[in-house]
Amino acid sequence: MLKINENRLIEDLRELSLIGATAAGGVSRPALTVHDIEARQWYRSKIAAAGLDYALDGAGNQSAILRSDPPSDKRILAGSHLDSVPDGGRYDGALGLLVAFEALRTIKDNGIRPALTLEAVNFTDEEGAIMGLMGSRALVGQLEAADLERSKIAPEELTKRLDAAGISRESMLGARRDDVLAWIELHIEQGTRLEDENIDIGVVDAIVGIRSLKLSLYGEAAHAGAKPMRQRRDALWGAAAFVLRARQHIMDNYTPGVCNIGMIGAEPGAFNIVPAQVDMALEFRHGSLQEMAAMGDDLLGLLEECAREFDLRASFEETPAVHPARMSETVMSAIERAAAALGLSHRRMLSFAGHDTQSMAQICPAAMFFVPSARGISHNPAEFTSAADCVNGANLMLHTLLEVIETLS
Amino acid sequence: MLKINENRLIEDLRELSLIGATAAGGVSRPALTVHDIEARQWYRSKIAAAGLDYALDGAGNQSAILRSDPPSDKRILAGSHLDSVPDGGRYDGALGLLVAFEALRTIKDNGIRPALTLEAVNFTDEEGAIMGLMGSRALVGQLEAADLERSKIAPEELTKRLDAAGISRESMLGARRDDVLAWIELHIEQGTRLEDENIDIGVVDAIVGIRSLKLSLYGEAAHAGAKPMRQRRDALWGAAAFVLRARQHIMDNYTPGVCNIGMIGAEPGAFNIVPAQVDMALEFRHGSLQEMAAMGDDLLGLLEECAREFDLRASFEETPAVHPARMSETVMSAIERAAAALGLSHRRMLSFAGHDTQSMAQICPAAMFFVPSARGISHNPAEFTSAADCVNGANLMLHTLLEVIETLS
Repeated sequence: MLKINENRLIEDLRELSLIGATAAGGVSRPALTVHDIEARQWYRSKIAAAGLDYALDGAGNQSAILRSDPPSDKRILAGSHLDSVPDGGRYDGALGLLVAFEALRTIKDNGIRPALTLEAVNFTDEEGAIMGLMGSRALVGQLEAADLERSKIAPEELTKRLDAAGISRESMLGARRDDVLAWIELHIEQGTRLEDENIDIGVVDAIVGIRSLKLSLYGEAAHAGAKPMRQRRDALWGAAAFVLRARQHIMDNYTPGVCNIGMIGAEPGAFNIVPAQVDMALEFRHGSLQEMAAMGDDLLGLLEECAREFDLRASFEETPAVHPARMSETVMSAIERAAAALGLSHRRMLSFAGHDTQSMAQICPAAMFFVPSARGISHNPAEFTSAADCVNGANLMLHTLLEVIETLS
Repeated sequence: MLKINENRLIEDLRELSLIGATAAGGVSRPALTVHDIEARQWYRSKIAAAGLDYALDGAGNQSAILRSDPPSDKRILAGSHLDSVPDGGRYDGALGLLVAFEALRTIKDNGIRPALTLEAVNFTDEEGAIMGLMGSRALVGQLEAADLERSKIAPEELTKRLDAAGISRESMLGARRDDVLAWIELHIEQGTRLEDENIDIGVVDAIVGIRSLKLSLYGEAAHAGAKPMRQRRDALWGAAAFVLRARQHIMDNYTPGVCNIGMIGAEPGAFNIVPAQVDMALEFRHGSLQEMAAMGDDLLGLLEECAREFDLRASFEETPAVHPARMSETVMSAIERAAAALGLSHRRMLSFAGHDTQSMAQICPAAMFFVPSARGISHNPAEFTSAADCVNGANLMLHTLLEVIETLS
């Protein structure tokens, strides 16, 4: 059975980890800053050394290309990203790109002429130093001029960074592609489900949607001594009941969906004043729009229930939601057939973090799979995936690509 | 039966309410600022007009004095304070002083020569513009030079204000008196127990102690998506459980004692991060040291219980406590006998706010009683006590003084 070149993959990972290396053992390569540019140059030279074609699109996305025989306009894309969060780890993004690149090299080295053209893509700014999923959003035509104005960095700095990558605002807005037949991404899990269950591969069936709400409960400020407790309308009592009921209800009815209350504050805020108002930051995530809608209804219902019970008033404000992205059954089964052939154990699971696959799922059959990350640690210099898991992931990418070619060609 | 002069009392209250009057209908007379000084001058002139003796002690406490026959070194003191919180009401403190003053005038006008000398005292800075209970603390010898250095205003401003009242730091530190046989204070309830139960008089049996603790619960920060809820150590879950259990436990076991959690915050504090730490500001109040100790043990026990249940760690820091002050049974029964004679309904109750009586209870038999305050509103321009209740209070002060003279002389 065809296998990738293990030593070459591991050596590439090592070389790449030296670019933007931090003292703590991780890497710092925020998008289009000096170390990310250096990583991009490294990738380009690797592509040349491998005898693959190179392409840079208007959004700065870099592709290694292995052309089909006979030539075809339609392509299968795989990959991830080379940029990292500040003080991040060596595997997030980097491993996903390198396994796709290694798969292409293996196919080429073995003299296989694929029936569909393959690309191993490094997406620009997945982590959002400028704007999260920037390169993939541009590729699927979902980047608008207004988005660029709302970027996290100053306009002159953005111009400088785009220049460094050989692109511009104009080229980004015209980066939409229509030649993509399918997309596959490997990523580290950034969680412990695979490790806990001792499973090799997580086949992602959906990338969760995220809804974020600011909840408020209003009672009545009162003297914390003179006001008898039975007469108080203490907003914190309702908030505490909500925290516990939301927890229980979501765990009982929506697992693996999750909710979190990450911020809380009481007003006016003094030892001796009964809280008149409590604000909470609620976030919840699940894999489908229907589940998200039901969770939202249930959570707001619980908030109302708690408000009534403690004689309070409730209100909420919602910020724009991230919609869940369902993965393609076609690509998921290709991953699962390939895993079975390789003897890799696997299960389906949600991705709770965002990935470029979210963008790609809007224009083509797309899916992604996870390899284990030790103790779930990510966005951290201690991020780690064993060489064996890296190799498993690369072989799975190789055979998934071959399966998808067979299915789609 | 001897009665005070109703019209004179109500007219005095009206006159006094013009000093530092606010547009909203209240008064603003922070201690030793211009309007408090004006109120003090008004009181001094009223004393002179009444033909009573006047005295100013080293702490700025002003007394109207009705001398005993035969002359005696020992005195019974009654009164309250003329200073107010900024933008406060007309009754807090003012009514308490005026009823004591009116009682002395009534005794004098009726040709009664009391067996013990009586004083109607205006204490300096009860409300704490400079330092809470400043005048009464100085009178009982509990004011130290270090306290003056920790006052809420700048040293030059303090000098200026003390000057305006004809006193100094040195005179304050030497203001201790040893001639006080008993103390009685009338105050508005600043709560709704009397109003709710339609009772004329609350006989205070203790002024509550106050303990203030900063509680912390420590869990583990985690990604609010990737970390399964069952594996989270969410500090807010433990905090929410504590808020609800503390509420229930104190209401079930310690009423009329109370607790409050007036501040809460979660760290690191983001929509998408599971709270690693939650800090809470806990305060609780009750009428005896034993009850305060038991409440403290129970509450910290509940905190530990909640920490264990959610796999958290707990810690706390305590700021200096205010000890509860038990009232004198001798003075309380004098109040109750006088109330019975006047046909006023009464019940015993805790005072949840601090008063100069706390200081006085440390050096002599002391007690205080409440008259109703409409809807419990206080420290607010809308503060109100009906003329009928003011008159009831003044007659009760008069007859309590006569009862106490009889008991102690």
